[in-house]
Amino acid sequence: MTVKLQSFHPPKRVLMGPGPSDVPPRVLAAMARPTVGHLDPAFVSLMDEVKLLLQKTFMTANELTLAVSGPGSAGMETCFVNLLEPGDTAIVAVNGVFGQRMKENVERCGAGCVTVEEEWGKPVDPAKVEAALKSHPEARLLAFVHAETSTGVLSDAQSLCALAQRYDALSVVDTVTSLGGVPVRVDGWGADAVYSGSQKCLSCTPGLSPVTFSPRAVERIRSRNRKVQSWFMDLSLVMGYWGSGAKRAYHHTAPVNAVYGLHEALLMLAEEGLEAAWARHRKMHLALKAGLEAMGLSFLADESCRLPQLNAVRVPAGVDEAQVRAYLLEKFGIEIGAGLGPLAGQVWRIGLMGASASVPNILLCLAALESALLRQQAPIRPGLAAQAALATVSER
Amino acid sequence: MTVKLQSFHPPKRVLMGPGPSDVPPRVLAAMARPTVGHLDPAFVSLMDEVKLLLQKTFMTANELTLAVSGPGSAGMETCFVNLLEPGDTAIVAVNGVFGQRMKENVERCGAGCVTVEEEWGKPVDPAKVEAALKSHPEARLLAFVHAETSTGVLSDAQSLCALAQRYDALSVVDTVTSLGGVPVRVDGWGADAVYSGSQKCLSCTPGLSPVTFSPRAVERIRSRNRKVQSWFMDLSLVMGYWGSGAKRAYHHTAPVNAVYGLHEALLMLAEEGLEAAWARHRKMHLALKAGLEAMGLSFLADESCRLPQLNAVRVPAGVDEAQVRAYLLEKFGIEIGAGLGPLAGQVWRIGLMGASASVPNILLCLAALESALLRQQAPIRPGLAAQAALATVSER
Repeated sequence: MTVKLQSFHPPKRVLMGPGPSDVPPRVLAAMARPTVGHLDPAFVSLMDEVKLLLQKTFMTANELTLAVSGPGSAGMETCFVNLLEPGDTAIVAVNGVFGQRMKENVERCGAGCVTVEEEWGKPVDPAKVEAALKSHPEARLLAFVHAETSTGVLSDAQSLCALAQRYDALSVVDTVTSLGGVPVRVDGWGADAVYSGSQKCLSCTPGLSPVTFSPRAVERIRSRNRKVQSWFMDLSLVMGYWGSGAKRAYHHTAPVNAVYGLHEALLMLAEEGLEAAWARHRKMHLALKAGLEAMGLSFLADESCRLPQLNAVRVPAGVDEAQVRAYLLEKFGIEIGAGLGPLAGQVWRIGLMGASASVPNILLCLAALESALLRQQAPIRPGLAAQAALATVSER
Repeated sequence: MTVKLQSFHPPKRVLMGPGPSDVPPRVLAAMARPTVGHLDPAFVSLMDEVKLLLQKTFMTANELTLAVSGPGSAGMETCFVNLLEPGDTAIVAVNGVFGQRMKENVERCGAGCVTVEEEWGKPVDPAKVEAALKSHPEARLLAFVHAETSTGVLSDAQSLCALAQRYDALSVVDTVTSLGGVPVRVDGWGADAVYSGSQKCLSCTPGLSPVTFSPRAVERIRSRNRKVQSWFMDLSLVMGYWGSGAKRAYHHTAPVNAVYGLHEALLMLAEEGLEAAWARHRKMHLALKAGLEAMGLSFLADESCRLPQLNAVRVPAGVDEAQVRAYLLEKFGIEIGAGLGPLAGQVWRIGLMGASASVPNILLCLAALESALLRQQAPIRPGLAAQAALATVSER
């Protein structure tokens, strides 16, 4: 053990993968402020503000709205362990990695899982979901991913939540990649349990998972027959800490500085305005798309269901995609994502999330990608991408 | 929703409660460095360094040593959900809040829990534990708290781990409050699953839970009959991300900036030296003790089992203890802790953890406490505490 260790100074990166996204200096500065106690009256007030800001961001009046003290996968698990009991049935729509993870969660709760499979790259099909709800009237909940980070596909949350309501099931919605990038209307949809992540379109550091639960979901939690299998994620206990009023019961020690960061990130989003943030993500996506298409590249997902903030781009035949990513990272500090599961080697995932959704990032990424592809003699059209992208941005 | 929100600037605090402790500027600065991806080669190298530093801190060669992406209670749950299966039996020693929480965890795993109860304020009794191990040969594990944060009591981990080995049970040890403050010799004890927290004697921000597992514990995890009930905490998956080599499988998104902070905090501890840090905690405890006793105050725990870093001090008869804490916080920015459970109203918990274990903090705390008690006409001896404390510090 004679390794000489020293303070870590990260290399400069441009984060254009599937998250984390670039974190604004304001958020980093907020996180570096002195730590206070997790039961300090000043911190309790901050928690109240975070709750208010999350309600605005989720577009909900849900009382049970908070940040789980863990990453998005802890938020996902919080939803399932609180809403399911052994022997329950859940319907899970699977059209990518995160639908599969939902299924894993359901099964580990001891519940039966009915999956509605869809080809990766396609949205969840409401007709198939309705058929599953019809043939499984015992199903307690319907779970689906709003924005599949593994494929860049947006599903129709409005219709799917309406179906869940019609068949008397609770809806569980993954908005990890959608929140802040495209409309997430929790009350408008009538969604029951919705979770997200701090490090995508909210442009905060990773580590927290915003969640919100409808009164119907809370009623379900209150009427459980047995304790939640996770003590850490048991909302009946967490509520006592994140609840209303000045009196908070100690449950666990909140990650105080991470909450400072989330507060600042949500504040910045509120200052920009939700609608303006959605418009920016859309505009930046169109610029990237124009540049990529000018180069001759194409998307995995159909335009009708394509996420602006997560662009799954097909790897041209004969190209070593890993070499392209390594070149971007090593030469230009740009991180883009690889394909997952059946899409490994077939797509890149280019994120335009939060602060990463910017013109300089897009121009850098297009130029670097063009350079990488030319080095591999890929059949692309060089020299057109930047102007194509800028033409889109300058349009009214 | 017309509340005008703005950036959060925390009040200045001196953290002398049961954690979090004061976080050094170096750690805060590390956390504010730009975020990189959780699979970035630079971050993977950092994870390797964190692992090495944690091994040094835990005094272990255990390969499976990492920081769980959640607070100490997530680290606790990670131990139980991975080591227990439904129908197993576990013996849990309970001498405070955190032993109770261990029991909750065991039961939520569907395992049977045999508790060995001890009066709060006393250490776990190895003789009673041995009796339980004898009468429950089926017990798979023995769990206990090394340093009970609710009472300020240290238990004899060496003897308890040896008993677990003798009766062929795995030992699970809570070192949340002990790690970095008093000796924690994981390999020396032969402990099997040990968890801690970032925000106590390590003086990092809250939110991460260092854990380490012996080869025997890993073997137990590998030979499970059924999947771990928590997907997020399933070490067979987490190992793929925190494992050796450059190739890491994505499991969840690590809280990147929090890991920067933990790295810096562990580095500072390595620079000071573990033995020096233990000696500093001890020396500062003796100073605080001298001051408190000069004033006429006394401790809950007997000297033989008293933690230097967590001082449970008896509230004098007739004193409104909540008013004292409020006065300290409002007038001097000092946070000290209240009693929990049966000790509510009976003790204060004064932390001297990590960077908080310093002479200026002790002098401020003694003077402020004296002032608060005099305001309530408590029968204390004023004017003696500071010199009594300093006399101890200046001793050779």
